[in-house]
Order: sequence, then C-alpha cells, then structure tokens
Amino acid sequence: QCSVHKPPEQGPQWRRRPGAGGARFPSWSLTTQATDGVIRGDSGPGAAAEEEVRRLCQGFMAPPVSGPQELWRRRRDMRGRMELLIMETQAEVCRALAALDRGAAFAVNTWERKEGGGGISCVLQDGHIFEKAGVNVSVVFGNLSAEAVQQMKSRKTLKDKDGKLPFCAMGVSSVIHPKNPHVPTVHFNYRYFEIEEADGTKQWWFGGGTDLTPTYLNKEDAVHFHKTLKEACDKHDPKLYPKYKKWCDDYFYIKHRGERRGIGGIFFDDLDSPSKEEVFQFVQSCAKAIVPCYIPIVKKHCHDPFTPEEKLWQQLRRGRYVEFNLVYDRGTKFGLATPGSRIESILMSLPLTARWEYMHTPPENSREAEILEVLRNPKDWVH
Amino acid sequence: QCSVHKPPEQGPQWRRRPGAGGARFPSWSLTTQATDGVIRGDSGPGAAAEEEVRRLCQGFMAPPVSGPQELWRRRRDMRGRMELLIMETQAEVCRALAALDRGAAFAVNTWERKEGGGGISCVLQDGHIFEKAGVNVSVVFGNLSAEAVQQMKSRKTLKDKDGKLPFCAMGVSSVIHPKNPHVPTVHFNYRYFEIEEADGTKQWWFGGGTDLTPTYLNKEDAVHFHKTLKEACDKHDPKLYPKYKKWCDDYFYIKHRGERRGIGGIFFDDLDSPSKEEVFQFVQSCAKAIVPCYIPIVKKHCHDPFTPEEKLWQQLRRGRYVEFNLVYDRGTKFGLATPGSRIESILMSLPLTARWEYMHTPPENSREAEILEVLRNPKDWVH
Repeated sequence: QCSVHKPPEQGPQWRRRPGAGGARFPSWSLTTQATDGVIRGDSGPGAAAEEEVRRLCQGFMAPPVSGPQELWRRRRDMRGRMELLIMETQAEVCRALAALDRGAAFAVNTWERKEGGGGISCVLQDGHIFEKAGVNVSVVFGNLSAEAVQQMKSRKTLKDKDGKLPFCAMGVSSVIHPKNPHVPTVHFNYRYFEIEEADGTKQWWFGGGTDLTPTYLNKEDAVHFHKTLKEACDKHDPKLYPKYKKWCDDYFYIKHRGERRGIGGIFFDDLDSPSKEEVFQFVQSCAKAIVPCYIPIVKKHCHDPFTPEEKLWQQLRRGRYVEFNLVYDRGTKFGLATPGSRIESILMSLPLTARWEYMHTPPENSREAEILEVLRNPKDWVH
Repeated sequence: QCSVHKPPEQGPQWRRRPGAGGARFPSWSLTTQATDGVIRGDSGPGAAAEEEVRRLCQGFMAPPVSGPQELWRRRRDMRGRMELLIMETQAEVCRALAALDRGAAFAVNTWERKEGGGGISCVLQDGHIFEKAGVNVSVVFGNLSAEAVQQMKSRKTLKDKDGKLPFCAMGVSSVIHPKNPHVPTVHFNYRYFEIEEADGTKQWWFGGGTDLTPTYLNKEDAVHFHKTLKEACDKHDPKLYPKYKKWCDDYFYIKHRGERRGIGGIFFDDLDSPSKEEVFQFVQSCAKAIVPCYIPIVKKHCHDPFTPEEKLWQQLRRGRYVEFNLVYDRGTKFGLATPGSRIESILMSLPLTARWEYMHTPPENSREAEILEVLRNPKDWVH
C-alpha cells in the first residue's frame, strides 16, 4: 500500500512559501537510471541529496501525493520513479503554457481520495491564449471495484479475491484547449498500474500517449507533431512509432460518427515488455517530447486571425471531443466508475464550450471538409 | 416482421403537396378502443374509413414509417395502434411548438434503416423561442445485437437463437431546449417493444416518461407540471404517479455529480401488466398530457427578461444535460450501439450549446444554489 502525504495547505499557498519547504522536506534522494540529467543517480541521503530533493520539489506545482519521506523510501522502486516523472512532466508543461499565455496563473488544487491516494490538478481557464488547459497528476490506490475492472477489459483476466483487487494507479494527464481555432487541442496521458492478484502475483503495466486535435488541417504542423513523437519512439525501437500511431488512430475513434477525434499521435496500453526498466525509459522519452511536439505549433498560430465561421466550426468539433470523452474514453469511464474519484479533475478534459447542430455538413472542397476527410481516413504523416 | 413504407421524397416536400396524398394513400382505417375521439373505432374499409385515414395522415408530419397499407393490415394489432399514437403525438407537439415560435418551420427528415424500419425526425433549430427542439418518431425492427441487449439489462433474461433476437421497437421521443433560461427544457419518450425469443415466445412491453429540466426553480411551474402528469396517471390507477415519479428521480440521476438532471416527472419501463390494452390506454393518457403540462410554462416565461449570468448558468446546466445523455441514458446508449441507427436523430437531444467550467460553485442562498438543492434532494410537488 502506498501512503499519502497530506499537504498542510492547498497548492497555491504552498508555492508562495518557498522558505518553509526545508522544514517539511526531509533528506531524501532518487535513484534512477535516467541519463537526461533531470532525475539523477543515487547520491545517498547526505546533504547533496537533500539539496537535489529541494531543487526538484521547488519546481513542482505542489508537494508530491505520496509525500517526500515515502518517495525517499521508494526511490529504487518504480512507484517512486514514476511519481517523480509525472510531477516533473506536470511542472514542465505548466511552465511552458504559463510562459506562452503572458504568465497566466494556474489554479493548483491538491485533493485526497478517501479510499486512498490523491492528486494535484492544475487548471488555467479563460487565459489569453488558452480557453481551458488542465494538467493533472493522480496517485490512487485501494481496491478495484467490479465496475472499474470492467473498464480494463483489454487486460488479461485478473484473479480477484472476494471480488476485490488491490491496485495502485498513477499518471499525468492533460487536455489543452486553445481559444484560436487555428491552434489545435492537445491531449496526453502517461500512466503506471500495479494490481495484486489473489495469489499474490503482481501485474504491472504502463500506458500513455499524446495526440493532436486540430479544428483545421495544417499539414506542416501535423508532420512536425508526428515526427517529434516518432523521434522519441525511435530512440527505443523503430517498430514502436508505427505500432502506436495506428493504435492511436484506432483508439480515438468515434464509432457512431465514423470519425477519429483528431489527427492522432501515439497511444499504447498494457505495456509490460521487454522490461520494466526499458518501458519506463520509453515512457520518459515520450513525456519529454510533449513540449517540443506541441508548443511550437501554439507559438506559430496563436495570433492567427480567424472568422466567426471558423470559431463556429471549432465549437462543433469541441462537441465531437465531448462525445468521444464521455462515450468512449476508457480513462474517463474508469474515473467515473471509481468511487472517490475527483470528478472535476476527470471532466477537466471537457472544453469550456461546445456546440451541436442538427445535420451540419460542411460544403465540398471547404477547409472543414478537408479535416473531416483526414478524420475519416487517417494519414501517414512521416513518410 | 414489419415492412417499410418508402416515402417517394423527403418529409418537407411531402407536406407541400396535400393534393398528391389521395393517390398514395389507399383505403384503410384504424381499430382502437380509445375513447378520446382522435383515433376512432373500426369503420370498415369503405369510403368513410378512407376519409378518416386521409384526415389523420394529412395531420402527420410525414407518411408513417410502416406505410398506410401495412398500418391498415395491422389496425387491430398493437403495432399499428402504437404507430398511430406516436405519429399523432409528434404532430400535436410540433404544431404546438411551431404556433408558439411565431410559426417557425420544422425541418422534417424521413430516414430508413438498412437493417429494417426507419423514422421521421422533426427539428426546429435556432427559432425565436426554441434553441433546439426535436421530435422524433422511429419504428425499427430486425435482430438485436448482443451490445444492444446489454442496454436492456433491466429486462429479465431473454433466450436468444444463435445470439440473435428478432425485435420491433417503436417510439416517439423529444427534447425541447428553449433559449430563455427561465423556460425549462422538457424531454419525453413513449415506446413499445416486441421481442421474439428462440422458443417463439413473444415478449412485449411499454416504456416512457416526461420530465422537466429547469435552469432556475419556479415552484408554481413544478407543481403545474407534476399535477398534470399525476392527473393523467390517476385516471388509470392512483398508485402509478408516486411509483413513476420516484422512478423518474432515480433514473435521471447523474451519479458522478450526485445530482438529478432536472426536477423529474414520470418514468417507467418494462410495463407489461395488467394487460396490453390497459397499458396502451395509460401510455395514451401520458402522451396526451405532454402539451398541457409543458406549453403553458413556455407561454408564461418565454418573454421573461434575463441577465448574461443567468444565460451562463443555463449553459453550465446544459453541460450536465450532455453528461447525463452521453454517460447514462439507456435510450442514447441503445441507439449508439444499434447498427444502422440514425445518429443525428439520437443526438438531436443534445443542446445547441453547452459549457463546462472547472470547479464552478454557485454562492450560498443564490437562485443557482436553490435549484441545485432540489436536484440533489428531489421534492414531492403535489402533496
């Protein structure tokens, strides 16, 4: 069982008191084989380690859910390493978005789950560039309900004990809806699961992905987005990108519309080979690719002029986004079915506004028809 | 198996050619034990009957799905009687709405389902009073998919044949979203099902309901709405209203929010006793109560002044409406899972626009908090 660090106050206040950090953060350090310099190798529980911890935590949006002491205890464990990666990813993305949006402030809310665990929600609403941008971290554990297990059907059958399965799930997830219809919406999610079966067997797996949902097609942007993700994958295995690109197109499919939600990216689930270490390294590469694959596209288009008709088309596409998330998305369904989930964090993915018009059909050869064609027949963007 | 009448052209054109009706509508009549004078007793296939049929059909929004000849053949059968009732209900409601909305025109679309059956969708969008008002009739048949059967879980187990169950489902369903936040949204649906099991047993049942979703609470309106429904129920059995009022509160529950969608009304499903005839009579009374329970409320408030803040609260409530319909509504799920369904007709229930704000909480003692309290703790409106 993980334990929960209860932050003495809500996130935003915490950040305003950097001096108080020292007292609450004991000596701890992190062990990881990552080589990118962000999360360094074991440096022992000495003064240097304490310094490193302070440096890391001061960059986070709020204290980690498990608390610094528990994380120190788990520093060689995947749970500790993954929690650090998701905290770092949350901070990195929030910093990049806030800097773009003329320093707009994120509302930071930490929350606890009665049944075990908690999370940190960072939301920027009605900014200059972003209509609604949410970046959530959650670390939850306890027993899986039958309903929640149902949502994990793609997993092999799990042997439960009196209908219960002890689990731990953690991840970072985000949806960023910009105001300008020429700036696409992005979604990413990287997560780690552990489930203990009745016979004591521990199942673990990673899942995740990053995908883009433009209102209008910009081929150059599509190529940049997919190429950046492909490079992150190729460092580990050239077979990964094609496989996860297709999985993404298949997953984000709005069956009743015959359309994908967007122009895809990568998506994977149930990843438990070749080894825990190698999968973690791959997930870390994907997480590091989020800012470079998306932020340049925002910078390029956030001041593009647009017409009321273009804004209307964006609103109709937002309606499709809502349809996918509420009808099909496994993460949303899992969240809504998990007792004690924080609904505001789960539904943060919904846009600020959306629209449904009866029998709306864009004219042939229009830019609206152009993107629909790609959503109906996904393209290869990197060859 | 039902058969499908293929209208020679789409609905709106059909209505513009009243003179052409005679040629396409053969001699037929209707048998029913209804006593309200709308659908009269058997008058034989003579000239008087032909006249009655012409009169009925000219009042409809489009020719009935099964076609006049098939309906004549089924005139003593529940399928024929129910199809007439749903056609009549559609026309009555559309006429009442169009008259209120300064004679606004409904777009009428007839559609066919490849797997069997079809429907008539009537939609008024962006009118003077109504933002989006849809009144659909559908009569579909064929074989139920495993997925669709799943959506009918509240039924007893059904014995299928090679995974297939021949079925016939028909109903009238409607959602009416007005523009003014002081005019509530209404929803109603009355439906009839027949399923044939592997051993030839025919199961049949009725379902339905009418419920109100106000943005702000008006107690007088709530009492009028519930009292009108209660009177319709009481004609048949005084036990019906309390039972179906509670069922409505239980059904339209947005579990993840801990709120009902609206202030309720009546809801029932799986109704197959005391007899087919008595249940039909009851359903007919409910259908006739739609206009008197709702239209007076629209008339009373459609010119009420409102503020931008009131419009915003309406938009947030519309977001909840979308959440209920896409996550929980059995009709929507059944439709999305039934191959060949007409998606535009199913999702016509979604509002034109909706909004989701992160962590929106109305101030204490506000009118917004007042309606939330009722949505969290349903009230008895008639005692």
